[in-house]
Amino acid sequence: MKLIEAIIRPEKLEPLKDAFLKAQIKGMNVRQILGCGNQHGWVAHNRGSEVMMNMLPKIEIKIVVTDDKVEDTVKLIIDTVRTGEIGDGKIFIKSVEDCIRIRTGERGEGAV
Amino acid sequence: MKLIEAIIRPEKLEPLKDAFLKAQIKGMNVRQILGCGNQHGWVAHNRGSEVMMNMLPKIEIKIVVTDDKVEDTVKLIIDTVRTGEIGDGKIFIKSVEDCIRIRTGERGEGAV
Amino acid sequence: MKLIEAIIRPEKLEPLKDAFLKAQIKGMNVRQILGCGNQHGWVAHNRGSEVMMNMLPKIEIKIVVTDDKVEDTVKLIIDTVRTGEIGDGKIFIKSVEDCIRIRTGERGEGAV
Ligand SMILES: Nc1ncnc2c1ncn2[C@@H]1O[C@H](COP(=O)(O)OP(=O)(O)OP(=O)(O)O)[C@@H](O)[C@H]1O
Ligand SMILES: Nc1ncnc2c1ncn2[C@@H]1O[C@H](COP(=O)(O)OP(=O)(O)OP(=O)(O)O)[C@@H](O)[C@H]1O
Ligand SMILES: Nc1ncnc2c1ncn2[C@@H]1O[C@H](COP(=O)(O)OP(=O)(O)OP(=O)(O)O)[C@@H](O)[C@H]1O
Ligand SMILES: [Mg+2]
Ligand SMILES: [Mg+2]
Ligand SMILES: [Mg+2]
Repeated sequence: MKLIEAIIRPEKLEPLKDAFLKAQIKGMNVRQILGCGNQHGWVAHNRGSEVMMNMLPKIEIKIVVTDDKVEDTVKLIIDTVRTGEIGDGKIFIKSVEDCIRIRTGERGEGAV
Repeated sequence: MKLIEAIIRPEKLEPLKDAFLKAQIKGMNVRQILGCGNQHGWVAHNRGSEVMMNMLPKIEIKIVVTDDKVEDTVKLIIDTVRTGEIGDGKIFIKSVEDCIRIRTGERGEGAV
Repeated sequence: MKLIEAIIRPEKLEPLKDAFLKAQIKGMNVRQILGCGNQHGWVAHNRGSEVMMNMLPKIEIKIVVTDDKVEDTVKLIIDTVRTGEIGDGKIFIKSVEDCIRIRTGERGEGAV
């Protein structure tokens, strides 16, 4: 099992949810974060002086999938959220050792 | 060290905190998320048409414990938050490579 | 690649962002959480009876770095946020298997 963690532009959440629905990817969770990447956010002008606004609002979406679904899921995310402009986001992949469905007590891949 | 990540119904947070207090499980952190599982959330009726509400509010609770405490902690969570209805939640277990208590600089299991 | 997850006092976020800027650490994300550690939070007095306030607001900052930058980054965090008082926070280190820059499709260390 792997956790795919995608940090995306807020306006890409709805298109991504639709894409997941179509692709039958069901389990996921979502939260708001602030972040910066290579550009340290953008620079704003405040009364003539430059102000570093180095934290932009982003959406983090987490999906745990079985190993065989990782590459397709990553491709789907990129195809759905990519604009080609800076700030398109990042995807991090981590290993998950176990998963449990609390209702049934199921463990492992069947519980994902 | 392992990270136990439990996604639960919001109304189960208080009972779970009480259970942890009794079991002397001390370190944890909590945040609000939106999520969906097998059922893609529930379907609501909005002026006659169906609306897919595919993100429900959930609570994510994270607890880092030493390896010997994983199974007892998982059991305690299930016993406390399980209702038997769909949407009871998920538990994910991940490996943690190191832990540091910032105040003392302690590292490893003693810092958990 | 490693994920460094630091849970710190909210008032230490600005100093830490400044320290990262100076050290040329660019990618990070930030969120608010509630948490408790060894002390189960503090105890408040409410109309004469003790009330356990076992969740304090904290900031969680996540930084993915290449392996060679882990120790310097950890040291920078500790040096910047440590007060020596209880509640200074925790750092957790986890392994990250892959990273993708969505704009370019770059993968691995070059995408961090
Ligand atoms: N190394 C990192 N560690 C943790 N979070 C990161 C890291 N790099 C980026 N992020 C998160 O991803 C978000 C989007 O990053 P962003 O797309 O700007 O990456 P980038 O490397 O700057 O690529 P680009 O040059 O295309 O902008 C950031 O706001 C931050 O939340
Ligand atoms: N594969 C997954 N990846 C990431 N988060 C998930 C995943 N599956 C579930 N979740 C999270 O767990 C929450 C609760 O899931 P839920 O209990 O509905 O799981 P389920 O598999 O649908 O089980 P049930 O059939 O008992 O409802 C979701 O709202 C979501 O936040
Ligand atoms: N074992 C743990 N698992 C998950 N989160 C933790 C754990 N321990 C601490 N935290 C998080 O770190 C925050 C700060 O913890 P804190 O600094 O109080 O640690 P501590 O072990 O009690 O050290 P100190 O004795 O210096 O207070 C907590 O509010 C919580 O969010
Ligand atoms: Mg950027
Ligand atoms: Mg469900
Ligand atoms: Mg403490």
